[in-house]
Amino acid sequence: MNKEIKKAATPHTVSVLKFGGTSVKNQARIQHVAEIVRDRLAEDPGKAEKKAHKILVVVSAMGDTTDYLLKLGAQCAKTPDKRELDSLLSTGEQISITLLAMTLKEMGLKARSFTAAQIGIFTESVHSKARIVDINNDNLNKALAENDILVVAGFQGITADGDITTLGRGGSDTTACALAAATDAVICDIYTDVDGIYTADPNIIKAAKLLNRVSYGEVIEMARLGAQVLHPRAVELARQYKVRMRVRNTFKPDHEGTIIDGGEDMEIYRSISGVAVDKDQACVTIMSVPDIPGIAGQIMQALADNNIVIDMIMQAFHQTAGLNNITFTVHSTDLDQTIKTLESIKGDLSASSVIADKDIAKVSLIGAGLAGQSGIAATVFKAFGGAGINIKMIATSEMKLTCVVSGKDADKAGKLMHSSFGEG
Amino acid sequence: MNKEIKKAATPHTVSVLKFGGTSVKNQARIQHVAEIVRDRLAEDPGKAEKKAHKILVVVSAMGDTTDYLLKLGAQCAKTPDKRELDSLLSTGEQISITLLAMTLKEMGLKARSFTAAQIGIFTESVHSKARIVDINNDNLNKALAENDILVVAGFQGITADGDITTLGRGGSDTTACALAAATDAVICDIYTDVDGIYTADPNIIKAAKLLNRVSYGEVIEMARLGAQVLHPRAVELARQYKVRMRVRNTFKPDHEGTIIDGGEDMEIYRSISGVAVDKDQACVTIMSVPDIPGIAGQIMQALADNNIVIDMIMQAFHQTAGLNNITFTVHSTDLDQTIKTLESIKGDLSASSVIADKDIAKVSLIGAGLAGQSGIAATVFKAFGGAGINIKMIATSEMKLTCVVSGKDADKAGKLMHSSFGEG
Repeated sequence: MNKEIKKAATPHTVSVLKFGGTSVKNQARIQHVAEIVRDRLAEDPGKAEKKAHKILVVVSAMGDTTDYLLKLGAQCAKTPDKRELDSLLSTGEQISITLLAMTLKEMGLKARSFTAAQIGIFTESVHSKARIVDINNDNLNKALAENDILVVAGFQGITADGDITTLGRGGSDTTACALAAATDAVICDIYTDVDGIYTADPNIIKAAKLLNRVSYGEVIEMARLGAQVLHPRAVELARQYKVRMRVRNTFKPDHEGTIIDGGEDMEIYRSISGVAVDKDQACVTIMSVPDIPGIAGQIMQALADNNIVIDMIMQAFHQTAGLNNITFTVHSTDLDQTIKTLESIKGDLSASSVIADKDIAKVSLIGAGLAGQSGIAATVFKAFGGAGINIKMIATSEMKLTCVVSGKDADKAGKLMHSSFGEG
Repeated sequence: MNKEIKKAATPHTVSVLKFGGTSVKNQARIQHVAEIVRDRLAEDPGKAEKKAHKILVVVSAMGDTTDYLLKLGAQCAKTPDKRELDSLLSTGEQISITLLAMTLKEMGLKARSFTAAQIGIFTESVHSKARIVDINNDNLNKALAENDILVVAGFQGITADGDITTLGRGGSDTTACALAAATDAVICDIYTDVDGIYTADPNIIKAAKLLNRVSYGEVIEMARLGAQVLHPRAVELARQYKVRMRVRNTFKPDHEGTIIDGGEDMEIYRSISGVAVDKDQACVTIMSVPDIPGIAGQIMQALADNNIVIDMIMQAFHQTAGLNNITFTVHSTDLDQTIKTLESIKGDLSASSVIADKDIAKVSLIGAGLAGQSGIAATVFKAFGGAGINIKMIATSEMKLTCVVSGKDADKAGKLMHSSFGEG
């Protein structure tokens, strides 16, 4: 993925700043963003090397614009054509980039707006979730030479045929990381409405601490395990191109935020980086499947054919009956489709029934140094056991330890995990 | 102007249909437009020659979208940068083309939307009032080969550098005429909220009649003289490329409307095509200017330098004093700037004073056959004299007779002119 992004031989020092929809939701907010951009430009990190500092700002659509456009589309067609929908949605960012560029120019700055088509962010010919395949470095270099600030539309791309695409979830963050990769930027700052990345969700776990620094892998695991931080896709791109990212608060521009990078020396000072609680999960069990090789594969294939992503899998073998119960977790939104799919193949598999459990949660411990630590699982089991929390499933990997518990136990389990490690 | 539009060698029969902002102001209206397009496609005028029928629809922004976008821009900057403003405004048409294309696809039709950048409508590098210089015929032919209906954004263009431009007043009509020229279309239908072109404004003159057919020149004169029909610029383009235009009512798609073409045989059946009343006019007189050659030129140059377009000019020579009074008409919105300009050069010209009269109107008789007719001026003078209407200035050309009268007499003068000729 994204193998084609080449670094432009830019003679400048580039900082990439990305602002989401809430940061540009009205004129006052756009003015605030313009002031941050102006101040950041003046920082001039390439001064020592006598390289001019350039700012590349990536913005999302203003506030609820995307929802409004989706509503318009839904009024016109039951299943809006995806090519047309992408072109429709792309106007949201085109509006915000032009307004921000106007504001910056009014402040006397050399700024200019660019749609994905104008700067040349090329994607696959797939609509609503296209991946970036190339960035036009000639356009980028020309634009950087002629301006101090480029305001680029996030979330959108263009195909080789000139069709407008959108990048799907996490799209604007992905645009920012791709442009940071192409310009060899010193930083890719993701401005949002929180102070940075925490060891856990501060709304659930009061003792959660802000992390100064975290590795790409940890953030990807946190996002996958339900922490609402950054879309893993953008972070994966950053990891691939070694882009230094930072999550910062738009409304507290003096706060340092959280740096995300390779974390080369991180294990020295921290083996656990955070706790994630994800309640939007469900468990599905297909009961009494004969213990024949290939059966599990058949089930997984049927789910994959229906675009259902499964996460944890557990197989319980009843030796006396020679039958398996196969249990796995899916995202809540996929539950109905999962049940439907399994019911349709139940007969072929000679399975007895399909059972679902909506009331579960995944509670995970994440840390780059987790693999090297012994006794972590034991500590978790002891803590949960002492609090009367039953662990339904468990999974570990190099960077995480995940337990499935009852929904009612989720917050308590998260707090226990966090107090056992995070607050040590 | 527009010298570069080349005709694409299209193997299809193309009809161009243009719909203004009120015709697409909400989902119900867009649905209505889609139904008209579907019915027009089925008409298949090229059947005899076995040429496939293709529809090229040009749409404006929905209802008040442009005003809303202008307001957003004005919030962000006192003088919004013109390049950014054009890019901002162009999203209005991008929204309406995608919604119409979705609606047409939902009906099972092979439709696709195109921004000016996507289809390749190239303009000068001028913002807010760019002129079209070229249309990419390869793009156009490819799009026509692949689709039955192209939905193209009106009012916008793109420069060779990829900047988005807008065409200014009459822009969408101009887009439609340019595309009709490039595709050698059989017709360029301008759908609007009136039945066609009338011999006079039916709101003022009840006896006004709908014209079946009118020449390019007459429509251009009507528009210049204040009739709110079509922007003369689009009609000039149609004249240059011999595009057959038609004005039709979106809400009465079965009505024939008014054909606009070269009018080769028109003089045979009609010498007078209409009456136009324009109340947005003012008279300015610069008094007692020495009768020296070049003085009038100096005045005109000063006004031109301030982008003031003057219309009628009258010079009254007082032989005994050897002085001239020079009077001319300007659009009301230019009056203040005109007075300011003349006051600033009054001293250099040794003129005595500048006098303005806001309370005037231009009443004009328009007709392709006017030049060949004798007695028309006499008939007008007699009618006005009999009604006690004083004629302040008069001007004639090959295709019009214009009188300046008091504002209070404007409607009466228009009715008299119309009854003297139009109802005969």
